[in-house]
Amino acid sequence: MVQLQDSMCDLLIVGAGPAGLMAATWAARCGINARIIDKRGTKVFNGQADGLQCRSLEIFDSFGFADRVWQESNHMIEICLWNPDETGRIRRTDRIPDTIPGISRFQQVVLHQGRIERFFLDSLAEYSDIQVERGVLPEQLDIDHSRAEDLDAFPIRVKVRHLSDDEATPFQHSTNVPDGLFRSSLAKDDTDDLIRKSRGKNGTTEIIRTKYMIGCDGAHSWTRRQLGFSMEGEQTDFIWGVLDIIPITDFPDIRMRCAIHSAESGSVMVIPRENKLVRLYIQLTEVSKNGGQVDRSTITPSIILQAAQRIMFPYKLTYTYCDWWTAYQIGQRVGNNFSSSDRIFLAGDAVHTHSPKAGQGMNVSMQDSYNLGWKIALVINGIAQRSILKTYQSERRRVAQDLIAFDHRFSRLFSGRPAKDAADEAGISMAEFKDAFEKGNMFASGLAVDYGASILVAKPGDSADQGDGTDVGPQQTNGSSSSYSTILKITGKQDLATNIKMGMRFPSFQVLNQADARPWPFAHFLKSDGRFRIILFAGNIASPHQFQRIQTFGEDLSGPDSFIHRFTPLGKPIDSVIEVLMIHSAPRKGIELLELHDVFHPLDEREGYDYGKVFVDDESYHEGHGEAYKGYGVDRERGCVVVVRPDQYVGWIGEVEDVVDLGGYFDRILIPQRG
Amino acid sequence: MVQLQDSMCDLLIVGAGPAGLMAATWAARCGINARIIDKRGTKVFNGQADGLQCRSLEIFDSFGFADRVWQESNHMIEICLWNPDETGRIRRTDRIPDTIPGISRFQQVVLHQGRIERFFLDSLAEYSDIQVERGVLPEQLDIDHSRAEDLDAFPIRVKVRHLSDDEATPFQHSTNVPDGLFRSSLAKDDTDDLIRKSRGKNGTTEIIRTKYMIGCDGAHSWTRRQLGFSMEGEQTDFIWGVLDIIPITDFPDIRMRCAIHSAESGSVMVIPRENKLVRLYIQLTEVSKNGGQVDRSTITPSIILQAAQRIMFPYKLTYTYCDWWTAYQIGQRVGNNFSSSDRIFLAGDAVHTHSPKAGQGMNVSMQDSYNLGWKIALVINGIAQRSILKTYQSERRRVAQDLIAFDHRFSRLFSGRPAKDAADEAGISMAEFKDAFEKGNMFASGLAVDYGASILVAKPGDSADQGDGTDVGPQQTNGSSSSYSTILKITGKQDLATNIKMGMRFPSFQVLNQADARPWPFAHFLKSDGRFRIILFAGNIASPHQFQRIQTFGEDLSGPDSFIHRFTPLGKPIDSVIEVLMIHSAPRKGIELLELHDVFHPLDEREGYDYGKVFVDDESYHEGHGEAYKGYGVDRERGCVVVVRPDQYVGWIGEVEDVVDLGGYFDRILIPQRG
Repeated sequence: MVQLQDSMCDLLIVGAGPAGLMAATWAARCGINARIIDKRGTKVFNGQADGLQCRSLEIFDSFGFADRVWQESNHMIEICLWNPDETGRIRRTDRIPDTIPGISRFQQVVLHQGRIERFFLDSLAEYSDIQVERGVLPEQLDIDHSRAEDLDAFPIRVKVRHLSDDEATPFQHSTNVPDGLFRSSLAKDDTDDLIRKSRGKNGTTEIIRTKYMIGCDGAHSWTRRQLGFSMEGEQTDFIWGVLDIIPITDFPDIRMRCAIHSAESGSVMVIPRENKLVRLYIQLTEVSKNGGQVDRSTITPSIILQAAQRIMFPYKLTYTYCDWWTAYQIGQRVGNNFSSSDRIFLAGDAVHTHSPKAGQGMNVSMQDSYNLGWKIALVINGIAQRSILKTYQSERRRVAQDLIAFDHRFSRLFSGRPAKDAADEAGISMAEFKDAFEKGNMFASGLAVDYGASILVAKPGDSADQGDGTDVGPQQTNGSSSSYSTILKITGKQDLATNIKMGMRFPSFQVLNQADARPWPFAHFLKSDGRFRIILFAGNIASPHQFQRIQTFGEDLSGPDSFIHRFTPLGKPIDSVIEVLMIHSAPRKGIELLELHDVFHPLDEREGYDYGKVFVDDESYHEGHGEAYKGYGVDRERGCVVVVRPDQYVGWIGEVEDVVDLGGYFDRILIPQRG
Repeated sequence: MVQLQDSMCDLLIVGAGPAGLMAATWAARCGINARIIDKRGTKVFNGQADGLQCRSLEIFDSFGFADRVWQESNHMIEICLWNPDETGRIRRTDRIPDTIPGISRFQQVVLHQGRIERFFLDSLAEYSDIQVERGVLPEQLDIDHSRAEDLDAFPIRVKVRHLSDDEATPFQHSTNVPDGLFRSSLAKDDTDDLIRKSRGKNGTTEIIRTKYMIGCDGAHSWTRRQLGFSMEGEQTDFIWGVLDIIPITDFPDIRMRCAIHSAESGSVMVIPRENKLVRLYIQLTEVSKNGGQVDRSTITPSIILQAAQRIMFPYKLTYTYCDWWTAYQIGQRVGNNFSSSDRIFLAGDAVHTHSPKAGQGMNVSMQDSYNLGWKIALVINGIAQRSILKTYQSERRRVAQDLIAFDHRFSRLFSGRPAKDAADEAGISMAEFKDAFEKGNMFASGLAVDYGASILVAKPGDSADQGDGTDVGPQQTNGSSSSYSTILKITGKQDLATNIKMGMRFPSFQVLNQADARPWPFAHFLKSDGRFRIILFAGNIASPHQFQRIQTFGEDLSGPDSFIHRFTPLGKPIDSVIEVLMIHSAPRKGIELLELHDVFHPLDEREGYDYGKVFVDDESYHEGHGEAYKGYGVDRERGCVVVVRPDQYVGWIGEVEDVVDLGGYFDRILIPQRG
């Protein structure tokens, strides 16, 4: 066996599923020298995860490809609840909106994982040279913990083997494999384009030395096992079958998301999908007898279909086309540790497993690495201090814990037998189920995530309590920089912006560009490009007093001694680390952009003035009034200032005059770039 | 010189600009054996036409790529009018919306022609094997008029020469060519991908025999000259320069569309574009002295810029990046004939030329071949009678005539000197200019097009008067089919749908899919696929009486003797020639789709019921209430029936019981497919 020579990179991502691809996408946007490897020879084509939360769509939008998902996916609008009546016949008992109206500009949709991975791959190709290296198996992992805090070190050493084609090709071609994974003839895709085997390297091994590493290698994570970390939690008794079919049925709500509880035969969840497909999650009551791990090979599509037919009786259900099927047993577990020395991180299924029915899996996994990717990138690029890395575990392990608690309650209610009446204590109350479903919708949207107090989130309270227990509060800096280093805790003023919550994602309302009057969802300007943003709610700048406050703010930010200059590398544009955006509330037609302070419309020799930084909350000609100040809960006269992290989570809120605290926020987390 | 053997096709398109590509796109969607040739070796990269009307975006949407245009383009929202004050200094005097609010779900945008052509090319590749054959020069044209009415004939013979690379490459590489055409470094494009020279055929000639031919070969149309047709109209004295630059300026409205009239130095129109570009149309007063054709080689970018600086004084204007520039003199002309024997057709600049400033050129050209393409396709496919082809000239030559009249008035007002006061009769009244601008907006949107009475538009009045004079009324059919052949004129009932105008495009309002509650603009379901559509406004089907009317309508349409069966080829799906869609006004939650007549949810053995044909005008969870019945002006109780042509123009309106007239409409234009 030929051994290749050692190679170096700044970031190695193991696993090219959605979590790994999300991390790679951050690397691409932040110019990181990253590699992403996967042991499989091709990406997935069908089946697997398919539900996408509002928050995932918002994240895709911040990378510029939400529109592709929005267009191809099936939009789930309404949930119909079906329950047995007094005779035991199932009836539609309720309709509730699938996504709570008003919480996002997107709604929950479904699209199979293979397409999502395609969009990531296209985005990687557009912004970088990063390509997924498929058929590459990691075999050995070493880390030199003693050099973890050395910024120049490559303390991680991974030995990988480049597989032959045969080794790397998963069973996707047969309809008879036990887990039902076979290739779809329905989903459009581009197989040949995707098979990137490391030809010429087949059978060779390679030593990769890297500064950072992320294990996104699934529930059986090789990386996690190398680190000796464990999963904590339990396996339930519930066995479920999954069919992705084009149904032929007289069930009236087959294009709605449905939760169907039969009287005695178990439950079905209906998830209508793209291309006329419908996914059915079907409770398999017969095969759960032995209580332990079930031999899935005894389950066939025919057994699953028959179970569905019993549950959905008297409606008829058959199919001629089946795209994918599988069966599973619910395990609900969370990893005990998400990182090793803040150099090697775990994300996605490698640190949490749970039921698929709430449509959370792919979303929470992607959001893990979405939380992590920019932090690693800013540290590698010398912009941010290493201390921000520990917020990954405190923020995401807490989310995983909350997810498992949610899933536990939801699964129990969904898998249980409906109560016959109020006295039937062994049964599940359908009123309780509906209530859980409605309350669960907010959680399921991904928008309830509320990161705890930390150096990145200047909110009151105890950071250990609000996270997973990790200490992520501010620490005395090592005297490397400024007068702010002695500030131990900065607390933002939440009451200045009642609907912009510190720790939660910055919401989006429609604003107009001051220069051309075009309406935009404000989130359009919070792209995932690694920059922090200061959103100046400038208030009513038609008032001379307020105008003067804003001019002073502009002067404070633009001076050569300002923190923005201090944290921006020499020779880089002034908005390359921290960008300043304004939303004012004065009438659009009464304000001239060029009369505002230069910091709000920087001049470039080749491109003239920047017309993309000042927005107004005013009536549009074609899209109504965004009522952004009302939506954000900000005073239209006085405004306020908000710091938004590169992942759109809110870090700090203050008055226009609170420039010292504003600088202090950045002082705790960024590295000064000039003397 | 090697001579290739004769080849045959059903449709030959000469010229691969927007008009030719639009025709090819229809051919691709309708499965026509078409070829498209262009003498140039590559497509355009920058400059040229860039304004896109609402109607053009609607058409792109019907082919599925409006979203790409919408995303990349600059949206023009507001027009600012600048005029001299009493001291002669220019001032902003008015702001008006660029697109009249409410007339379309799109607004006018700008994007350079090269990107539009790219979207067409991508769409061709997705739906067909049709590729643009570049570097192919037509040299000789013959048509056997005696065989024009023979459906099996290939009466057209075109000799073409495959050029060498040198011959086919236009001057796009130098900044010094007289017309200012040079390659852009700004616009993203894919040059290498596009150069499809007929290598291996270089220098050879080929005889193409074809059934139909469209000349989209520009203002100097070779096709038009072969046919001996002429252009009628005049050349004006006005000389204009055009600069596509990234401006460096303190003019406050540089990102708005502006019409600037200076007191004595002429006029400028500002068109903000994508990628920070701005197009300036600049009146060149100095060089128009001799009145006749001007030697454009005496005009330089510097001369044009200086003229702009004088007009825009006291604001400063410079640039470091110029993407494209040119100069032109306005010629306003219309072709005297748009077709020869309804076998060879002319479209686009080949039959109309005018000022570019109203942003009409590319739009009207594309809409010519959009009007023509489906007619030729349905005739070639044996679905429609040849008599529909004569409506092309009556409909589009009339539009060209209206365009020239509009352009004449608009150009005079824009090129003239502003009146100093009411007594200054030689000057142009700025109030009149504003009025013309506002009224012109409806025309400029492309939505004012109102095709006259014909066999395709069952409205009252004289068809010759309403068109360009061509006789396009119904004729006695030659006894080939049914009892309807004796009906000479069918007149729809306009008052049943007051905002759906026969002869105009079917407007779009939001409706919900009955099966899954998803909101859609109804236009989404009027795709350009060559099908006629019957839109059944089913009214309040919660009422038993109305429900029965609709069931009867369904029975009338679905019987084996119905006209839908008669015009559908054996073995084809029942909705392949005429599709039936329903919009009802009953509460969504009170209606069960499967209880409606089968014709509204056809069953397929493999795909189950069709859930995509029944819609409801009701409140959505996330997008409000579409109020479609109100928007369409249709009675919510009784409804009505509307026939929509494959190009979305309204052909007929009637009562639910008017099935005989409905069948009669199709009887005049389609060919029976079965006994």
